[in-house]
Amino acid sequence: MTAVTAFSFNKLVIFGVGLIGGSLARALRERSGVSGARSVTGVGRSAASTARALELGVIDASAALADDAALRAALAGADFVLLAAPVAQTQPLLERIAPFLDDATIVTDAGSTKSDVVAAARAALGARIGQFVPGHPIAGRESSGVDAALPDLYGGRNVVLCPLPENDPRDVERVAAMWRAAGATVSDMSPGQHDRVLASVSHLPHVLSFALVEQILNSPDAALKFSFAAGGFRDFTRIAASSPEMWRDICVANRAALLDELDDYTAVLTRLRAAIEAGDGAALEAVFARSRVARTEWQERGGAKVATGDASK
Amino acid sequence: MTAVTAFSFNKLVIFGVGLIGGSLARALRERSGVSGARSVTGVGRSAASTARALELGVIDASAALADDAALRAALAGADFVLLAAPVAQTQPLLERIAPFLDDATIVTDAGSTKSDVVAAARAALGARIGQFVPGHPIAGRESSGVDAALPDLYGGRNVVLCPLPENDPRDVERVAAMWRAAGATVSDMSPGQHDRVLASVSHLPHVLSFALVEQILNSPDAALKFSFAAGGFRDFTRIAASSPEMWRDICVANRAALLDELDDYTAVLTRLRAAIEAGDGAALEAVFARSRVARTEWQERGGAKVATGDASK
Repeated sequence: MTAVTAFSFNKLVIFGVGLIGGSLARALRERSGVSGARSVTGVGRSAASTARALELGVIDASAALADDAALRAALAGADFVLLAAPVAQTQPLLERIAPFLDDATIVTDAGSTKSDVVAAARAALGARIGQFVPGHPIAGRESSGVDAALPDLYGGRNVVLCPLPENDPRDVERVAAMWRAAGATVSDMSPGQHDRVLASVSHLPHVLSFALVEQILNSPDAALKFSFAAGGFRDFTRIAASSPEMWRDICVANRAALLDELDDYTAVLTRLRAAIEAGDGAALEAVFARSRVARTEWQERGGAKVATGDASK
Repeated sequence: MTAVTAFSFNKLVIFGVGLIGGSLARALRERSGVSGARSVTGVGRSAASTARALELGVIDASAALADDAALRAALAGADFVLLAAPVAQTQPLLERIAPFLDDATIVTDAGSTKSDVVAAARAALGARIGQFVPGHPIAGRESSGVDAALPDLYGGRNVVLCPLPENDPRDVERVAAMWRAAGATVSDMSPGQHDRVLASVSHLPHVLSFALVEQILNSPDAALKFSFAAGGFRDFTRIAASSPEMWRDICVANRAALLDELDDYTAVLTRLRAAIEAGDGAALEAVFARSRVARTEWQERGGAKVATGDASK
């Protein structure tokens, strides 16, 4: 269900106040149906990185990650911690947080991969692993940074939670309620299932899109090709303007599932290549027609509830 | 240059009054800077196929392709003939037209491939080949049919002409003036160069997009994957909703250039696969960063002058 649920919180601490963390902060502070002190503290790699979030009023307070005293104060009495940094930072961030973590604080994340995040959390949190509820809001924009944050980024979008056996179901429900308060629809999957699904519909298309731009760049007539690229190229490669650091981390973190999908995709391409080489129009048309029907039906069902014009994931 | 040029015509005959032919008709009838009788006749495989174009006022008259007398009347005194049907129909259409063609009529086309179209035109027109000026307006929408036709479809878009040695340069210039009157920027290329460029920036991305939807459809958890597909998938696969018949013909017609691009692309994917498998984040980030810069610069240069939101080519 996508209805806004009543949700109350006193203190949320966000590590990485960019598009994803900033949009959750704005949603919980600006949307109706949320009560409590609603105080949000942002933590960045440096104080400078949170200054803009403070200036925009997205957060109430900030702390530098390297500052022990500030970090201890930031985490004291927090209801929730959200990790919203590239997934490779999960383990060092949790190791940094662990010594200052209250027993009652629920930690969750917004990482695009989940098996590696769970492994990192287990390594970093040890016996405190039950406090960590893995999550992934499937929303984004090609623009990044806190200036791009929107209170409605999660409206109608999917959030996947991957509860651990050690989680208290009430904590999982509180994280779900937080995302529903931000407007999202919340589902559960296992980490492995999440990673396979996202490898297919998100990670693989990103690699394929980056690869097309790379191929053109490497060709002798790159400038001419770019000059005559039009709307198909524009949409196909929009995600090739995504963050290199974020996508590097995703590809490495989810490599097993991504390689499976890539190999499966290459097999489909090999079949299509054979049909093209043979001039087998009937085989090509059959594939294209199936794809058109499936893509059109997907769009008509609401396109995975993608409402606004620029979701990038 | 994209400025509208003064252009005069008395009679244009369009074979295939769908999105492409209908948009040119609307542009030449509705935009300023065009003079003359501006009469447009549509010819379809059946009278029924042009009825809607008549009803919408896109054309003034229609003729059924199979009707000798109607076709003769339609072509009598025509300044221009535009072929706007899938490229595989080029040769049979020109064979059908040839006996009724006035010496002064200029024939052009809107096909997405050019080497095969030129070969088809030579086979069909013989000594009259000089009357045929090959062309390709690089514009489109994912919706097709005359109801989707827009008078501004070609505004700011590229049209490529591939003049033949047999063409009278004044005829080439008249075709260029026609497209400029519709708002387009006109360039010249050889058929081979056109086909290589379009294979790279249009035909290959379409195949890659169709292939992704096909792959998901063939997977055991297709429904789950579609449910969690979001904005990246949406844009990457928008062109997978394109016309199966049109893209079947393009893949077969331009197979040599398309296979070259596909093999080159597969080599890039193979390199990326190796980097993913090795967990070589630096190599991945280097490729992603180059792609992001190139894609962002392309967009900032105007994205090949793509102005409206739904060009599909």
